Amino acid sequence: VNHEPDHRLDFHRSARIGHAEAVYSEGKTLDHLAAIVTEAAARNESLLLTRLAEPQHRALRARVALAMDYDALSRTAIVGAPRAPQGADDAVLIVAAGTSDLPVAAEAQRTLAFHGVSASRIADVGVAGLHRLMPVLPRLERASVVLVCAGMDAALPSVIGGLVRAVVIAVPTSVGYGVAAGGTTALHACLASCASGITVVNIDNGFGAACAAMRVLSGAARLATP
Amino acid sequence: VNHEPDHRLDFHRSARIGHAEAVYSEGKTLDHLAAIVTEAAARNESLLLTRLAEPQHRALRARVALAMDYDALSRTAIVGAPRAPQGADDAVLIVAAGTSDLPVAAEAQRTLAFHGVSASRIADVGVAGLHRLMPVLPRLERASVVLVCAGMDAALPSVIGGLVRAVVIAVPTSVGYGVAAGGTTALHACLASCASGITVVNIDNGFGAACAAMRVLSGAARLATP
Amino acid sequence: VNHEPDHRLDFHRSARIGHAEAVYSEGKTLDHLAAIVTEAAARNESLLLTRLAEPQHRALRARVALAMDYDALSRTAIVGAPRAPQGADDAVLIVAAGTSDLPVAAEAQRTLAFHGVSASRIADVGVAGLHRLMPVLPRLERASVVLVCAGMDAALPSVIGGLVRAVVIAVPTSVGYGVAAGGTTALHACLASCASGITVVNIDNGFGAACAAMRVLSGAARLATP
Amino acid sequence: VNHEPDHRLDFHRSARIGHAEAVYSEGKTLDHLAAIVTEAAARNESLLLTRLAEPQHRALRARVALAMDYDALSRTAIVGAPRAPQGADDAVLIVAAGTSDLPVAAEAQRTLAFHGVSASRIADVGVAGLHRLMPVLPRLERASVVLVCAGMDAALPSVIGGLVRAVVIAVPTSVGYGVAAGGTTALHACLASCASGITVVNIDNGFGAACAAMRVLSGAARLATP
Amino acid sequence: VNHEPDHRLDFHRSARIGHAEAVYSEGKTLDHLAAIVTEAAARNESLLLTRLAEPQHRALRARVALAMDYDALSRTAIVGAPRAPQGADDAVLIVAAGTSDLPVAAEAQRTLAFHGVSASRIADVGVAGLHRLMPVLPRLERASVVLVCAGMDAALPSVIGGLVRAVVIAVPTSVGYGVAAGGTTALHACLASCASGITVVNIDNGFGAACAAMRVLSGAARLATP
Amino acid sequence: VNHEPDHRLDFHRSARIGHAEAVYSEGKTLDHLAAIVTEAAARNESLLLTRLAEPQHRALRARVALAMDYDALSRTAIVGAPRAPQGADDAVLIVAAGTSDLPVAAEAQRTLAFHGVSASRIADVGVAGLHRLMPVLPRLERASVVLVCAGMDAALPSVIGGLVRAVVIAVPTSVGYGVAAGGTTALHACLASCASGITVVNIDNGFGAACAAMRVLSGAARLATP
Amino acid sequence: VNHEPDHRLDFHRSARIGHAEAVYSEGKTLDHLAAIVTEAAARNESLLLTRLAEPQHRALRARVALAMDYDALSRTAIVGAPRAPQGADDAVLIVAAGTSDLPVAAEAQRTLAFHGVSASRIADVGVAGLHRLMPVLPRLERASVVLVCAGMDAALPSVIGGLVRAVVIAVPTSVGYGVAAGGTTALHACLASCASGITVVNIDNGFGAACAAMRVLSGAARLATP
Amino acid sequence: VNHEPDHRLDFHRSARIGHAEAVYSEGKTLDHLAAIVTEAAARNESLLLTRLAEPQHRALRARVALAMDYDALSRTAIVGAPRAPQGADDAVLIVAAGTSDLPVAAEAQRTLAFHGVSASRIADVGVAGLHRLMPVLPRLERASVVLVCAGMDAALPSVIGGLVRAVVIAVPTSVGYGVAAGGTTALHACLASCASGITVVNIDNGFGAACAAMRVLSGAARLATP
Repeated sequence: VNHEPDHRLDFHRSARIGHAEAVYSEGKTLDHLAAIVTEAAARNESLLLTRLAEPQHRALRARVALAMDYDALSRTAIVGAPRAPQGADDAVLIVAAGTSDLPVAAEAQRTLAFHGVSASRIADVGVAGLHRLMPVLPRLERASVVLVCAGMDAALPSVIGGLVRAVVIAVPTSVGYGVAAGGTTALHACLASCASGITVVNIDNGFGAACAAMRVLSGAARLATP
Repeated sequence: VNHEPDHRLDFHRSARIGHAEAVYSEGKTLDHLAAIVTEAAARNESLLLTRLAEPQHRALRARVALAMDYDALSRTAIVGAPRAPQGADDAVLIVAAGTSDLPVAAEAQRTLAFHGVSASRIADVGVAGLHRLMPVLPRLERASVVLVCAGMDAALPSVIGGLVRAVVIAVPTSVGYGVAAGGTTALHACLASCASGITVVNIDNGFGAACAAMRVLSGAARLATP
Repeated sequence: VNHEPDHRLDFHRSARIGHAEAVYSEGKTLDHLAAIVTEAAARNESLLLTRLAEPQHRALRARVALAMDYDALSRTAIVGAPRAPQGADDAVLIVAAGTSDLPVAAEAQRTLAFHGVSASRIADVGVAGLHRLMPVLPRLERASVVLVCAGMDAALPSVIGGLVRAVVIAVPTSVGYGVAAGGTTALHACLASCASGITVVNIDNGFGAACAAMRVLSGAARLATP
Repeated sequence: VNHEPDHRLDFHRSARIGHAEAVYSEGKTLDHLAAIVTEAAARNESLLLTRLAEPQHRALRARVALAMDYDALSRTAIVGAPRAPQGADDAVLIVAAGTSDLPVAAEAQRTLAFHGVSASRIADVGVAGLHRLMPVLPRLERASVVLVCAGMDAALPSVIGGLVRAVVIAVPTSVGYGVAAGGTTALHACLASCASGITVVNIDNGFGAACAAMRVLSGAARLATP
Repeated sequence: VNHEPDHRLDFHRSARIGHAEAVYSEGKTLDHLAAIVTEAAARNESLLLTRLAEPQHRALRARVALAMDYDALSRTAIVGAPRAPQGADDAVLIVAAGTSDLPVAAEAQRTLAFHGVSASRIADVGVAGLHRLMPVLPRLERASVVLVCAGMDAALPSVIGGLVRAVVIAVPTSVGYGVAAGGTTALHACLASCASGITVVNIDNGFGAACAAMRVLSGAARLATP
Repeated sequence: VNHEPDHRLDFHRSARIGHAEAVYSEGKTLDHLAAIVTEAAARNESLLLTRLAEPQHRALRARVALAMDYDALSRTAIVGAPRAPQGADDAVLIVAAGTSDLPVAAEAQRTLAFHGVSASRIADVGVAGLHRLMPVLPRLERASVVLVCAGMDAALPSVIGGLVRAVVIAVPTSVGYGVAAGGTTALHACLASCASGITVVNIDNGFGAACAAMRVLSGAARLATP
Repeated sequence: VNHEPDHRLDFHRSARIGHAEAVYSEGKTLDHLAAIVTEAAARNESLLLTRLAEPQHRALRARVALAMDYDALSRTAIVGAPRAPQGADDAVLIVAAGTSDLPVAAEAQRTLAFHGVSASRIADVGVAGLHRLMPVLPRLERASVVLVCAGMDAALPSVIGGLVRAVVIAVPTSVGYGVAAGGTTALHACLASCASGITVVNIDNGFGAACAAMRVLSGAARLATP
Repeated sequence: VNHEPDHRLDFHRSARIGHAEAVYSEGKTLDHLAAIVTEAAARNESLLLTRLAEPQHRALRARVALAMDYDALSRTAIVGAPRAPQGADDAVLIVAAGTSDLPVAAEAQRTLAFHGVSASRIADVGVAGLHRLMPVLPRLERASVVLVCAGMDAALPSVIGGLVRAVVIAVPTSVGYGVAAGGTTALHACLASCASGITVVNIDNGFGAACAAMRVLSGAARLATP
């Protein structure tokens, strides 16, 4: 028998680096998820669960008697209350190159909402039809941070990076087939972008891109108040 | 001792598929190159040598007493006379995303010229500054074939493919570093392009792209004369 | 709540580059597919859906009350009427190296048919038995464009490319196991082909090969009518 | 003969996205570099050359009669005057995990200096001896942006990302051998970091990381002045 | 018909190298597993089955009438009696960076228990929150062998390797997504560790890490008794 | 509608290269399999089907009213009569390093049996317990061809290749996990073998190894009868 | 100081498996090569050195006073006398797809000659011009073993394997660029060949292919004399 | 100007984890190496430099006036005095599969000697000739730790791991060509070893293997003295 704890939630993270504890659910057993959620509720802490597949969500629901705000598109659940909204609207914008990239964009949007940051989502403006991008360009030019979710050849971050001065965080997605399957081509294209100063997160990592956006907002706040 | 021939030049290729014998020089010994060039001259056949590095060229020059038209940027040499120019100018256009992609573009241009096809070369119109592309767009719209040489993230073929109806042949180049080194990222990005109907050749294969363009011109000729 | 649209159909594509809007269905949610199909029908536009798996098709059918022409082998559905047939028969030929490559060949054939181009499909003429290829060689020699779908070692495009002057577009397929699984070996073999002027599309990309063929037909038409 | 220009410098980039034109020198011919540098000088524009190897620098020097500020460690040259220094010191910090990562850190530092941003460089504080990191932690906690250059297993960005709330941009380096050779392991470790909100640039891309830092400063400025 | 035996159990292994025969169950047919288990029972030998999925376990149970101690988290079954416990507690410690790494840690723990070695399991002390590691550091400093199971960027083995003098055996896990999926990034990060003298086993190989720990205990015993 | 045939069976293969037509069943539709089997029966030709999964077999059975000899371990079916046995027993031996490699060994054995060659199968003599190999060494020394099926690190072909003078054909298998998953490590280890003169076939390709063995027997026959 | 021997030549290999000790020279120090060659000469044993670059050969020559038969194309040296020629001419044939593949073919030819087997070399009969292959087909049909050296897409082994019943051993070469560079594409194409019963050796491994051919001759001899 | 230090030597490492500071020299500038060596000498600390190529060594020698014990085979230099020898001879044994693996074995041997551990080196006992291994088996059986350096298919660690109960640390080397080039095949084969309890270090990492051996000796010492 093992008497050591199987998880150690890090609720001090918010004080330390500015964003709250979140739990990556893929591959966790139902026992572990239930214990985590129960502890958070018992300690009255809010919690974000990411990559929680619908069957996992249903099973968890059946096991623990807790209210959970679940969103199927982003596969996220929020336990407890999200932070109150703060900051200017559309300081952060989330762009999805195609409709198929929306689950990743939605994960980013939900993560930001959980932390009190509202961010719009602009979809299906990929490079194959540049005329679709032009109407939204003024909004992109006003933003401080633009998250660009794109799969396949992921040319959109390069195009946007060459047009606006905002922080551009590319989120390569696993959308595609053949050489694009799994997102490695999109990832490499973003990293090798000919537009300067684009940064990149892991494939399908909408959560991480949102956290990076919050680091920018936080760094900006400190720059503004010396 | 080996009494078998070490090479068998294929001068019937032109009659069969429409483009002439060419010799890929990289890795061939000086003995083999000299024998090939000498045989072509003795049979009064023209020959294109590709990937002939400058030291190889100098050594070959010193070995065989033959006129050769060598171009250092494209690393090509022409033995004998190229075909007489034919067809409309700018039916084929060669675009290089950056200045560093010019050697590949030049290999394509020289291969076409060797076969009597004149094609202009448009350089440094990459995606990081889309405004540089716009002035040349009308020329791209009038072309029948556009060869697009691009390294790094190779976003340019997707952008052009979404704007024009020409045959777009992407030539990924090995320009770049890190994940882009060697051209695999450019290759994969071209293959995964979100613009439909783009075809791709091997990395740095300006020669092959030119041959493909000649196949298009030849197929078009047959369509026009049933 | 998100008030931005989740898709932006590009019905001007046909006027711009000559082929119509098509929807890659893999990974799209049923909600998104239904909204897309409904909008196309409402706007009286025809639409091609590719990579629509049978379960997706059944679910979509159950959701929207629309006639759809579904083909299980190619996993394509056509909403609305395809273009009227035009051009010479067999200007485009589709070759499948083996019986297992037929789904990819069928995707190309259906894409062409949707655009009004009829193209025959020639199957099981792979390199392991060259005598099977010889009877169809005259048809290949008369074609303007030959699409060659081949998996495993994909030697067939090289053999055909060395025999005919048509545009040869290789479509590597994911048929095979071990080192061939996923189609990367076939893709690389096509790109490294010893026959000159072959171009290549992404693995299993019958749709893209068909679009490329249409670019050739369109370029040829412009060359013929200056 | 080719009458098209071989390069098109983008001096409007600064107005558009906030950082100036820079030239990646690796693989460019001496002719092209000389033409670029000469044009910049003639138009009285400042220019940053990156990845300019010492032999290239000497040859360029011998060809064009221009003052150039060359730095061997970072392999950068500055033509013309850098921007006047601005902003708070140490708003951006550059950390190098080991001494071997310094060339990459120096490229970032020089790029920032060229744009008028002064940033300190903290070296040899890798994870194998965590006690070396602790004394500099307060400085990291005060910064708005931290660039972390690390090769081999690149564990340092994760450790720093878990300790501070600044924007953390990881710059994987090609330092290492065996599985680490070329920097892919470092790149992947940064992308897969267990610390949330870290973003990543291409291997050895000190230039790009500096540009990304400038996007953060620029975004912060806009947030502070609505 | 085949008259050769389909398996040859190696019960002399214990005498030769110190650890007992174990059977890797993944991919074995039910017929083969049943024959193996039956032979071990008939010969009165204990046997460890690893990677025995729950459905396999249920089917095996239904087929052979034998007592088996099955553990779902580690997917291991023990047939017969484990060795009697021996040696000091916590001479071997098993650390899991995250909760998701526990199945691998459990496989190691069960393998050790089967051989009579008791080892504690310390979970969720990953690098993103270093403060969680500090309380267990004294235990790590007292251990002779530390097995560190970590996925994603696997930074934990480097941190521990820089802090303690014990034998550190890194067990990269397949936990993660994108570039981390499958465990290759974790594996490479462990191999490229900047902390000296860390050794590594195959991805998810808790069994092998336990066997390596037993080799250390056995080597130590021989050193102590010359 | 397509009026071209979907398959072209190659029953002349036996006369040409000595082994009969065989059909790789994985990924083929039920329609195609049924048409192939029916044609073979109608023409009274024997046929070997490989990689025929059990569900495919059951469905095929239900569709066509034909006797088929199906073997689940090797996933092969024989339609019609195999050739009469010929040649010396154990001229060909099939070795499986572990029990998990038996499906591949069985595919080789069935392919040989279909062609009238009887070959024994020796299992579970892997390198981890060399003493298990020694008793079968005399049989290996008498054989003309030894097929060695091995997964994981595939060290057995090297060991056998260093001990006997027979033709050694290594068949890497996909048995294993982590770096071994999929069989690439086994494949590469066989290709890089330190024992000279070992040849290799594709991963899990028991069929191909058997065909290669038949080429050896055939070549030997011709050498013996000049 | 180390008192252990640095090499242990295996002159019993010939008695055991039929081919003699050979030394792979790449990466060996001059000290080690000199000691090996000197020992062989002192023991009056013949020795084949492979991958001996010209500078190594010159340095070795200058160090030890021994006659050596060096061949620059194949980079092989023979110390002592080769075996007396034996067996039928052209029982083994060596085919090189292109002129650039000749160094590999020559290594195979020299290895066979060292062992007393004479084998002709047929060059430049690649798939891009099938008509060049047809004249040599009768010789291929008479051979017992055909070694096929091919780079790039390596389609030639498949074509030959579909035409003849001989043992076909494919030797992929590193000839090519882009995706073909290094020979991996050629290797994979050979392994995935659609022609049945082809076996493969490591990239550029002319030596190993020759050893495999000798195993066939030896196995044939034993089959003929029961 | 940068006023931060460019290196921070970690001379407390010995007290903390038991082995001394060492400097990986590859890629370090001469300035940095000279500063490091000078500081160590000034502080009277011994220092091991690894991967110091001969030209680097000569340049360093010319720059700093310090005695250095340089060994060309292992590319190591020792500044100051090594530790006094301690412990039993041959508690650690270093095996090199082939002569070409000796540089890696020598790096391990020198690292151990620098720390006062004497270890013999046994060379050229690879799997292709198992009879060469048998005479040294008794020594291997008596050792507590065996380091096995092997390239190509690296089958030797599996064979030894199946025969002895010592700690077996595999050191894959970059010896080989084709699929073996760079050492990845050797690395993967060691990780996927069918012998249980083998651990692995990075390719060519003789230094790391020696440090791991010292961790075993240190752990053993603590076990022996509770």
